[in-house]
Amino acid sequence: MKKYQRLARQILEQIEQGVWHPGDRLPSLREQVTHSGMSFMTVSHAYQLLESQGAVVARPQSGYYVAPRPVSEPAVRRQVRAGAVDINTYIFDVLQASRDPSVVPFGSAFPDPRLFPLQQLNRSLARVSRNATSVSITDNLPPGNEALRHAIARRYAAQGMTIPPDEIVITAGALEALNLSLQAITEPGDWVIVESPCFYGALQALERLKLRALAVPGDVREGIDLDALEEALNRWPVKACWLMTSAQNPLGYTLSREKKQRLMALIKRYGVTFIEDDVYSELYAGREKPLPARAWDDGTSVLHCSSFSKCLVAGFRIGWVAAGAFARRIQQLQMMSTLSTSSPMQLALVDYLATQRYDSHLRRLRRTLAERKQQALHALYRHLPDPVRVHASDGGYFLWVELPREMDASELSEAALHQAISIAPGKMFSADSAWHHGFRFNASWAWGEREEQAAARLGQLIRDRLLP
Amino acid sequence: MKKYQRLARQILEQIEQGVWHPGDRLPSLREQVTHSGMSFMTVSHAYQLLESQGAVVARPQSGYYVAPRPVSEPAVRRQVRAGAVDINTYIFDVLQASRDPSVVPFGSAFPDPRLFPLQQLNRSLARVSRNATSVSITDNLPPGNEALRHAIARRYAAQGMTIPPDEIVITAGALEALNLSLQAITEPGDWVIVESPCFYGALQALERLKLRALAVPGDVREGIDLDALEEALNRWPVKACWLMTSAQNPLGYTLSREKKQRLMALIKRYGVTFIEDDVYSELYAGREKPLPARAWDDGTSVLHCSSFSKCLVAGFRIGWVAAGAFARRIQQLQMMSTLSTSSPMQLALVDYLATQRYDSHLRRLRRTLAERKQQALHALYRHLPDPVRVHASDGGYFLWVELPREMDASELSEAALHQAISIAPGKMFSADSAWHHGFRFNASWAWGEREEQAAARLGQLIRDRLLP
Repeated sequence: MKKYQRLARQILEQIEQGVWHPGDRLPSLREQVTHSGMSFMTVSHAYQLLESQGAVVARPQSGYYVAPRPVSEPAVRRQVRAGAVDINTYIFDVLQASRDPSVVPFGSAFPDPRLFPLQQLNRSLARVSRNATSVSITDNLPPGNEALRHAIARRYAAQGMTIPPDEIVITAGALEALNLSLQAITEPGDWVIVESPCFYGALQALERLKLRALAVPGDVREGIDLDALEEALNRWPVKACWLMTSAQNPLGYTLSREKKQRLMALIKRYGVTFIEDDVYSELYAGREKPLPARAWDDGTSVLHCSSFSKCLVAGFRIGWVAAGAFARRIQQLQMMSTLSTSSPMQLALVDYLATQRYDSHLRRLRRTLAERKQQALHALYRHLPDPVRVHASDGGYFLWVELPREMDASELSEAALHQAISIAPGKMFSADSAWHHGFRFNASWAWGEREEQAAARLGQLIRDRLLP
Repeated sequence: MKKYQRLARQILEQIEQGVWHPGDRLPSLREQVTHSGMSFMTVSHAYQLLESQGAVVARPQSGYYVAPRPVSEPAVRRQVRAGAVDINTYIFDVLQASRDPSVVPFGSAFPDPRLFPLQQLNRSLARVSRNATSVSITDNLPPGNEALRHAIARRYAAQGMTIPPDEIVITAGALEALNLSLQAITEPGDWVIVESPCFYGALQALERLKLRALAVPGDVREGIDLDALEEALNRWPVKACWLMTSAQNPLGYTLSREKKQRLMALIKRYGVTFIEDDVYSELYAGREKPLPARAWDDGTSVLHCSSFSKCLVAGFRIGWVAAGAFARRIQQLQMMSTLSTSSPMQLALVDYLATQRYDSHLRRLRRTLAERKQQALHALYRHLPDPVRVHASDGGYFLWVELPREMDASELSEAALHQAISIAPGKMFSADSAWHHGFRFNASWAWGEREEQAAARLGQLIRDRLLP
């Protein structure tokens, strides 16, 4: 193959692989000469060859452009496959599939982003863009922006908890906070208690860090069984617990004040460390924000993880851990893995929080989520056949839908996805098959025609699977 | 203790621990009543007690404010201690100490942020703040913003490399890219080759993932010894190599084209995977951007990691890995650890890159860094005593300063920090004592009176340590 043919083939490859899109202007002959080190003649020949093949179009006085595609390829829907695939791949596939905007996102973990105060956040971002200096934009290594840590500490203080800003580390969402926490207090092979079912991120983190999981069963209404927890603590050399105490994912329950106190007493008695995943803490029902279990600790036993992703803005990726005695270790680990979260995002949140609009936004958000959850609950009962049970808890925006025992929610999930509906099957949250006939339903979306039809289709899919 | 005394003590504690600063307005009596569940009388008593103790000041019609501190505490300088401390703690302390703005940052890893196009980046951020929608702000799960991946793919294409945008994963700086890459291809106990000396992040990552490090020596001018590398590949069951091929940190060398080709031939022959850390790729000398070793791979053997942090903006925390065949695995791992980088930061970069100013910024930046490196080099030779050698390489902005063999750069670093000067001692980059009498010097700063004086003080400290 001659030089110009090789170059032509390379450009063709780049077009095929999506580096250049139809309509894109290709590098000019002169640029191409500089980059490739080839002669003007060679490059020019290559472009002419591509033109003769119909791959590029020359526009006089302008340059060479990628030709439009002859036929548009049909959009291929990614298929979710269960079975031999490992659980991480399964979860990844479910999550990826539900990203498609044409899919009704009942399986999504995030609340409807239209409920977030976009305009005000944008205004804060605009103010940061006016005021950011070259220093403010670099000076945010761990533990993160000082003003932001202060603002968070003051929210703890408003609940009567004294958490020094120096013990708060800003992270890339609660997910990084939780992962760093687990890493800070465990070694491979350690035993860690989680709930069954629980947030799949916990299971993944345990697997990634080669930890041994002990899953303590929970009740869809009352939450984790503390007798079973105590038995587990008694029997195994447990190093840590990772639990959600308010608006648990996926079931939705909030532990009572008494249960939280007893939980903390157990944590202390058995000398284990508690990672409290509290990402839905602002999405409570009723007038009073429930105290986290951290309220009964002095910072020696609990790493309290939360974020703004579920209640203010998901795309900023800002969370934190109130790490108490573990703060320095967490900072070290962060410095080794992601260094820090981005400066403008932290500054924009500081600006937004200073506007004092956060609490009224949260009040509105809680009200709307409660209304939408009611609407979804009624719609599901209208459309799903009789043996199906829908559990609505007070906090958060998830419903837990329980199919008849013999039914496999993963299989339903796959079938639903073929009809452009996502749900989050129990298998994502527990290895225990006792939960595999349930699925998590995101009720944060405005209920309209599309949602009504999707619920109806879901009902039909379930009816098709009922034993005769 | 009575209720109101308890509340007063809690607030006092919050003031002492920095939750409330002098001059801050405390929650109003009404707010405090709501949060604490105590009576108005109790809360009011508590505030009066605090006022009588001089801890808070009441302002009529306005509320209670934290009193100013009676005397300002002297700023305590954090001391760096070597010796019994483990290497991660040592590195962490050096990095933390050099964050103090009163310290002359010769030890810093980042270039002078004033060299970055702050105004234009701010303009991009402002445009994002006008145009961001609730969807654009959530829709950036791994692998990251599509337009940004395209822009990066096109920069590869401009160097003749065909890298499909789908194989690029956007990360929180190169540090996350490198960590995810290492995690994607290794299991605990695996052997990994690094250079000696090398970027400390590599050593930390290996330790964190319980990998075995093989350090292959490098030459301050020519870089890694490929014969030694081949011997290591021959003798040990090596799984991966993590090397810098251009403007290596800390030494500064760029491998020649021939060495990169031979390196890739070795990688292929021994069937290992290559993590190419290429964060300084844009900071080359001369007219041509050197090709990375990735140019001689088809995406099956190399994970090419880079970022915008060293050449455009550090605070955005945006990097990437061109992961080839490993792209899906990398996405899975990211989804389990940080989920994704923030949306507005990705969108702002897309906007900035579309302005076509990036290349002219880079040309200016390269010119300035080269000038400053020359200035620093001359100044060091003016001020440092004779046996000291300063190595200036072509790329990047680091100088490598070699003290007399018997001198310990860590000890010098500690002494220099007491005089508010940071340097990055060899111990941060290698366990091999052969490098412990050298230090990395950041030459990106505008050379002024402060820098001149700091160099003079550094010279005196070295003279004080010369054998008589």
